[in-house]
Amino acid sequence: MKKKNQIKTEIEKLRSNNFTTKRATVNALEKILYKSFKILDHGFVRVIDYMGNDSSIVQAARVSYGKGTKKLNQDKNLINYLISHRHSTPFEMNEIKFHIKLPIFVARQWIRHRTANVNEYSARYSILDKEFYIPKNANLKPQSKYNNQGRSGELSNEEIKNYSKILKDNSKIGFENYSKLLNEDESGKIIDDSKKGLARELSRMTLPLNAYTQWYWKIDLHNLMHFLSLRFDPHAQYEIRVYAEVMMEILKKWVPLTYESFLSNRLNSITMSSHGIEYIKSLIKRRKRVPKNISKRELETINKLFNC
Amino acid sequence: MKKKNQIKTEIEKLRSNNFTTKRATVNALEKILYKSFKILDHGFVRVIDYMGNDSSIVQAARVSYGKGTKKLNQDKNLINYLISHRHSTPFEMNEIKFHIKLPIFVARQWIRHRTANVNEYSARYSILDKEFYIPKNANLKPQSKYNNQGRSGELSNEEIKNYSKILKDNSKIGFENYSKLLNEDESGKIIDDSKKGLARELSRMTLPLNAYTQWYWKIDLHNLMHFLSLRFDPHAQYEIRVYAEVMMEILKKWVPLTYESFLSNRLNSITMSSHGIEYIKSLIKRRKRVPKNISKRELETINKLFNC
Amino acid sequence: MKKKNQIKTEIEKLRSNNFTTKRATVNALEKILYKSFKILDHGFVRVIDYMGNDSSIVQAARVSYGKGTKKLNQDKNLINYLISHRHSTPFEMNEIKFHIKLPIFVARQWIRHRTANVNEYSARYSILDKEFYIPKNANLKPQSKYNNQGRSGELSNEEIKNYSKILKDNSKIGFENYSKLLNEDESGKIIDDSKKGLARELSRMTLPLNAYTQWYWKIDLHNLMHFLSLRFDPHAQYEIRVYAEVMMEILKKWVPLTYESFLSNRLNSITMSSHGIEYIKSLIKRRKRVPKNISKRELETINKLFNC
Amino acid sequence: MKKKNQIKTEIEKLRSNNFTTKRATVNALEKILYKSFKILDHGFVRVIDYMGNDSSIVQAARVSYGKGTKKLNQDKNLINYLISHRHSTPFEMNEIKFHIKLPIFVARQWIRHRTANVNEYSARYSILDKEFYIPKNANLKPQSKYNNQGRSGELSNEEIKNYSKILKDNSKIGFENYSKLLNEDESGKIIDDSKKGLARELSRMTLPLNAYTQWYWKIDLHNLMHFLSLRFDPHAQYEIRVYAEVMMEILKKWVPLTYESFLSNRLNSITMSSHGIEYIKSLIKRRKRVPKNISKRELETINKLFNC
Repeated sequence: MKKKNQIKTEIEKLRSNNFTTKRATVNALEKILYKSFKILDHGFVRVIDYMGNDSSIVQAARVSYGKGTKKLNQDKNLINYLISHRHSTPFEMNEIKFHIKLPIFVARQWIRHRTANVNEYSARYSILDKEFYIPKNANLKPQSKYNNQGRSGELSNEEIKNYSKILKDNSKIGFENYSKLLNEDESGKIIDDSKKGLARELSRMTLPLNAYTQWYWKIDLHNLMHFLSLRFDPHAQYEIRVYAEVMMEILKKWVPLTYESFLSNRLNSITMSSHGIEYIKSLIKRRKRVPKNISKRELETINKLFNC
Repeated sequence: MKKKNQIKTEIEKLRSNNFTTKRATVNALEKILYKSFKILDHGFVRVIDYMGNDSSIVQAARVSYGKGTKKLNQDKNLINYLISHRHSTPFEMNEIKFHIKLPIFVARQWIRHRTANVNEYSARYSILDKEFYIPKNANLKPQSKYNNQGRSGELSNEEIKNYSKILKDNSKIGFENYSKLLNEDESGKIIDDSKKGLARELSRMTLPLNAYTQWYWKIDLHNLMHFLSLRFDPHAQYEIRVYAEVMMEILKKWVPLTYESFLSNRLNSITMSSHGIEYIKSLIKRRKRVPKNISKRELETINKLFNC
Repeated sequence: MKKKNQIKTEIEKLRSNNFTTKRATVNALEKILYKSFKILDHGFVRVIDYMGNDSSIVQAARVSYGKGTKKLNQDKNLINYLISHRHSTPFEMNEIKFHIKLPIFVARQWIRHRTANVNEYSARYSILDKEFYIPKNANLKPQSKYNNQGRSGELSNEEIKNYSKILKDNSKIGFENYSKLLNEDESGKIIDDSKKGLARELSRMTLPLNAYTQWYWKIDLHNLMHFLSLRFDPHAQYEIRVYAEVMMEILKKWVPLTYESFLSNRLNSITMSSHGIEYIKSLIKRRKRVPKNISKRELETINKLFNC
Repeated sequence: MKKKNQIKTEIEKLRSNNFTTKRATVNALEKILYKSFKILDHGFVRVIDYMGNDSSIVQAARVSYGKGTKKLNQDKNLINYLISHRHSTPFEMNEIKFHIKLPIFVARQWIRHRTANVNEYSARYSILDKEFYIPKNANLKPQSKYNNQGRSGELSNEEIKNYSKILKDNSKIGFENYSKLLNEDESGKIIDDSKKGLARELSRMTLPLNAYTQWYWKIDLHNLMHFLSLRFDPHAQYEIRVYAEVMMEILKKWVPLTYESFLSNRLNSITMSSHGIEYIKSLIKRRKRVPKNISKRELETINKLFNC
């Protein structure tokens, strides 16, 4: 990868750009364009480009309806209507392009969202940096007893110390072996002139899943919200949720009306099954009756939400 | 639909925008942003927004390769390499958004390209204009005898006159019936106050396939080139090809290096089967021999291309 | 198109097939395979092929969870869990292929669902049948006053009679003009030997939007449920909803556990915004208070659902 | 993961299925259904389900053309026509579902093909097996000097021995650390009752990229051929190419006519740019002249192919 200073200079140069455009433009987003937001120990997210704003969504929707309205309030209502009725096409009209650095095991979850465009750093072609994700002590937790795919509870200080050391040592050994196989050190210097080194596409196999990779990732606004609804969720793994949190802040700057509506109508909404509806009816009538077919999980969710 | 004057004023307003941006910007495209290019008798194409330029493609590709180069010549070579090796992801990083007005039968072909985003004018919601595609006399041709899905040859003047009249009359009757069913004339005035009119979602059924519709259509550069490789082709129906022709000119302004490479490596390229290769070998060796399994069509193509 | 008798014989032949397979098989669906279900006046839906059953979904989900369970009850619970948590990938593992005949204006709505595979009858290549959708009198309704894209209320008998006649006459004229342009009658006979006729790709322009087309349409189970959640909905246009109704019956035969869960957790579910939740809280506490930001539409939906 | 014997029994049970179906069926594929084909040291591919055969493609294409033909020879010609003209939709009508076990670094390349459906074994939820890809000595090669993303040339015996040992040791250490963090050994036994172990979603971070994962992977025939055209290619990494090789054999059994055409018209075809065509013209006319703009790579390809 490029030297960090070189990258810094390039970014500063881009950030000093001042072009004139007739395109829809968002000042709040322009202010942070190219800026790198640090995440985890070596990761980051930065916006490289974008297309459209809140008005572009309204404009696209109004092609369908064939009429125009002008006031901000009407724009807000229309966006609310579109989000709450799960209209997807007007939001697909906006795009955003990120540059992201993230651990490989996070990248493996992330890439499952197929409706995005990706250019990833290729370890067949180039050599990865010596950068590995080591969680902060506060994030080292035991397997959850209730959630088969999560962590919860606390470890002893001794365990934390021990596990953190294992992760660090494992990363170190993985990278040392990578260098040995490549016959090339971190700075790109040949280690032993009498040897050839193993091909990069094979040497990379020693790297553990907490090694960092990076990519350009472009997505439309509809699919970004779908990504965020899954990854900003409390059940998402902490290490991907922190990326979603930064992207939520970016969303707020980019399309503030859409962001507000997304919060109320998606992130903070609840979907109840026919059994859940029946149960709520009994609660409103003060004749609490648990429907036979309601799932345990839905029952718990409703009871918690409505303090029953 | 909105009155034409109203639309004109809005477009002029948009064309006078002057925002400042740090984003990749293409001056040649800015100059024609929002401008309407007339196509057929009532159709048009205009660019509403775009994201990225030739350098964005190079930049995205170089994330994968993990190194940077600077000179124009190297950019050109890299783009050539990417196009000729059918690398798609770096081109997916650029987007363009069009506003298009087109006859319904053309829209029905067009929509088959699924990797695009569309917001179409809804005839459930609004009333269509009295605009129908009537081909120029020069474009009225008989069914091709060689190509089951094309036209070729010439009609007599009398036939042309007759067929053109049928198309005009049919459009007129279709729209008259549409108005009668809606109980509303072209200008939106109720025809008979004592009647209710049929719902718009049903009334539209009388409109013939040469009625005009319109939509916003957004696509990434990779899929735009795929669309153009099929629709700029001489075998494409004339009425969609004229749209592709205008979009080729827009492509040239937007990403000139990609455009050049697309011409050489895609539009003006040829793909030969193993049988075609065998045949060319025999031609080069001056021992012309037609392989048993070569298709008639490939044989003709090669003979024509190489004057054999 | 092929003669109807010829098609009937082919279908009967297919329906008498008796192959042996090791694949997941659904007897209830085998019984109706290739069978044509009539819809509207000339339309139909028939299942041509399918892949997977309820167990295939469970099996795919369990690859992810890496463990196996066997009992029917567990399968049902897992499917419920997957549907209610909007897990899409296990349902994407099943596919179904339909042969569908439908009016063009319905096809234009339908095709907006992009995540399906389509082969449509080509009117560039072949000649369309003389078949047009004429709604039954009971379905001819005025424009809704409340819903900009629907019909509601009643027309007078005279209007119904009049509008129905307009639709029939318009279809007749459209087809007559089509025949004149093609210089070929319904049975494929040349009308006037001294004339050439206009190319098929142009002649089709006289056909109105209620002409019938047909296609093969293949979709995975996840996207089929998404299609049905939009098109089985009371707000969908009647003429597409009748197709969704038949497909719901087919879904029930194909994957009965998934069908049950889809009903409870999707079709008969409700999604409430944060404002809706707040409102329900006030109802349960018997301190009814309408939140400031709740939309009129959500308020009405909740009041209606819970009789408030 | 399930015990190997348990899996074996399940597969045998599936392989003894004998259902009756009216669906298109391929005997040659039925014979190998569920059968596991070994790849690399611990990987495999097996077909779990399929939909359609060569005739289904023809049938789908003929919906578009609106006419039927019957003879095998015509089917073959039609498939050839469809493949050579890059018609994609009829091939999208067929689907195949695989169960695949593969090293993680291969899975990361593979998943970049987005037009497929995937259910992957989740290491958040379950514990991975102690299985790592260790290349055979013959496949350990140095970095290619000509191809930045490949291997070529030979290593000394000592280097091979050394590098192979590093890969084995690195895998062993990675798994030992994984077990320590989980506080659970290979057989699922708790190592130290006084400890809690780290959550699975974190412990997995010590695993190197040559650990094996597995997934269900479903794809339509059009996209499978696209995948194979990239991954069966000599430039593809050896470790993914071996999977493509097995899938080519499966393709041959499934759709033999399509397979033949795919070989002639895609895998063994060549695409020449306008410059390449110009160059060939000069060769046929025996006035060899290298066009100014031809790329070095295309020149080499043509010279090699035609022995110039």
